[in-house]
Amino acid sequence: MQPSPRKSAAIILDWGTTSFRAFLLAADGKVLDSLETNDGIQSCTDGAFEALLMSRIAPWTASNGALPVLALGMITSRNGWIEVPYVSCPATLADLAGGTRKITLPNGAPLVFLAGLNDPGREPFPDVMRGEETQILGYGLDRDATVVLPGTHSKWARVEKGRIAGFQTFVTGEIFSLLSKHSFIARSAGDTAGEADWAAFDRGVATVASGSEQANVFLSLIFSARTGMLAGQLKPAEILDYVSGLLIAHEFHEAMTANWCISGGEIGIVGNDGLNTRYARTAKAFGLGVRDGGEIAAIQGALQIAATLDLLGEPAR
Amino acid sequence: MQPSPRKSAAIILDWGTTSFRAFLLAADGKVLDSLETNDGIQSCTDGAFEALLMSRIAPWTASNGALPVLALGMITSRNGWIEVPYVSCPATLADLAGGTRKITLPNGAPLVFLAGLNDPGREPFPDVMRGEETQILGYGLDRDATVVLPGTHSKWARVEKGRIAGFQTFVTGEIFSLLSKHSFIARSAGDTAGEADWAAFDRGVATVASGSEQANVFLSLIFSARTGMLAGQLKPAEILDYVSGLLIAHEFHEAMTANWCISGGEIGIVGNDGLNTRYARTAKAFGLGVRDGGEIAAIQGALQIAATLDLLGEPAR
Repeated sequence: MQPSPRKSAAIILDWGTTSFRAFLLAADGKVLDSLETNDGIQSCTDGAFEALLMSRIAPWTASNGALPVLALGMITSRNGWIEVPYVSCPATLADLAGGTRKITLPNGAPLVFLAGLNDPGREPFPDVMRGEETQILGYGLDRDATVVLPGTHSKWARVEKGRIAGFQTFVTGEIFSLLSKHSFIARSAGDTAGEADWAAFDRGVATVASGSEQANVFLSLIFSARTGMLAGQLKPAEILDYVSGLLIAHEFHEAMTANWCISGGEIGIVGNDGLNTRYARTAKAFGLGVRDGGEIAAIQGALQIAATLDLLGEPAR
Repeated sequence: MQPSPRKSAAIILDWGTTSFRAFLLAADGKVLDSLETNDGIQSCTDGAFEALLMSRIAPWTASNGALPVLALGMITSRNGWIEVPYVSCPATLADLAGGTRKITLPNGAPLVFLAGLNDPGREPFPDVMRGEETQILGYGLDRDATVVLPGTHSKWARVEKGRIAGFQTFVTGEIFSLLSKHSFIARSAGDTAGEADWAAFDRGVATVASGSEQANVFLSLIFSARTGMLAGQLKPAEILDYVSGLLIAHEFHEAMTANWCISGGEIGIVGNDGLNTRYARTAKAFGLGVRDGGEIAAIQGALQIAATLDLLGEPAR
């Protein structure tokens, strides 16, 4: 006897500025199918979101009926389909589910837009995330933890008593991108092979991790990419990974100074930007344990919201 | 009776990567004439330096004879005409004069290349400057002082007992340029009129100057350019001057943490990058007095070296 094929229960959209990703899920979270295109919200003129979505998911709805759809990412921002107001920290799963906005698609299925999250406790203005809160949900709110989400704008978040208690943004990835493409570092850095130069990366990390408080001056440390070359201590091919190590380690230094975690503690690392290995390596240099949060936490988080909203029943046929 | 016209005594070159500036000076430092072209060392192929120089200063030597020439800036670097090794801190006027390299021009006049300066006391590698040491000389080594030289790569230097005791580089101007041209800030910032928005600048400064240690996190503060917009607290036209204030104030915060000066103290500000007003304004917010070092300190410094090397006698005719 063959096992009956797992039933599709929902479609999750991760719809960002430059990309459209969709996942067909079973009720237990198994990914049955997925697709990715470059139909970011940037390339979508007003009002064209619905037509694009229906055409992209047509093959799935043809086989599975009108499945509920959950959307997260910049599609829920001011420049997206519908602007969903931020839910505020501290926030439970129920708070995030309550902050969603629902519309009905032409096929009768619900489309639920997930809310972003803000932290009114941050200075000088409330901090914001849109999408990462769903990754944190997927990582789990069931035990207290510090969760790090590496990226262009990295987030450090604190989970306490079943809630996302607060978070802070660090623009580390963006600064690295600017330095490596447009600065004096871009002009002196050599081509790097595909594989990271881990020795160079670790030297950057160690410079910060073992540096004195007086030496850990961000605007000066960056210049060490040049002075290291002039001193004959850095080769052009080492520069970019050295700077990557400096920057990520400085993010850890700043996050720990701001009390997001303490040496000897543990962090969860969640993300899909290809940076998790660099962050795990840096955590070790700062005496932190690492729990790998995996790369599909957003899907698990969205599914929790779908279950809370009771969207995972039999699909309409 | 008419006063006799002042005699020309030397030519000073400030020859950088993208520009060529020359000054015809009297022995007392008065600028008798000057010229600026875009003949930076970048646009000068190997060996063409001498021909270019002789043609540019031909009108002056025709009227004044073969005047001694002193050159500073990137013309003395690895990519310039002659690479002059760095003199090391602590350095007196005599040390800097002793580190020069002299050649003889086709007209028999000496051409003296000034040395750059390094500070072996900095971590993780010795810090470097090339040109700013001459500005500090011009500002004066006769009394102890902290001297700030705003720029793409700002320098904070300490003068003690007639010597440049040490210095540190902050890449503030470069980071501002990157953020304002290529980052998320560039995309959201509105056009700014010619005049600075001093209220927006001061808000950026105050955010750092009055911020708690935990709030003064560089990689997070930058993100406040976005969160301030989302919170309705910053207008697009205010963003760039707000970020300028944040960055310059963070340079002060870092420099003071690194003990380059203490609140209640005084700094000298020397530079010609159009940033002196911003730095003076920021100094006030940090409780620092300001002594204006003027914009032509490099010329005064070069002239001191010329006098030390006994180059200011009667020009050969």
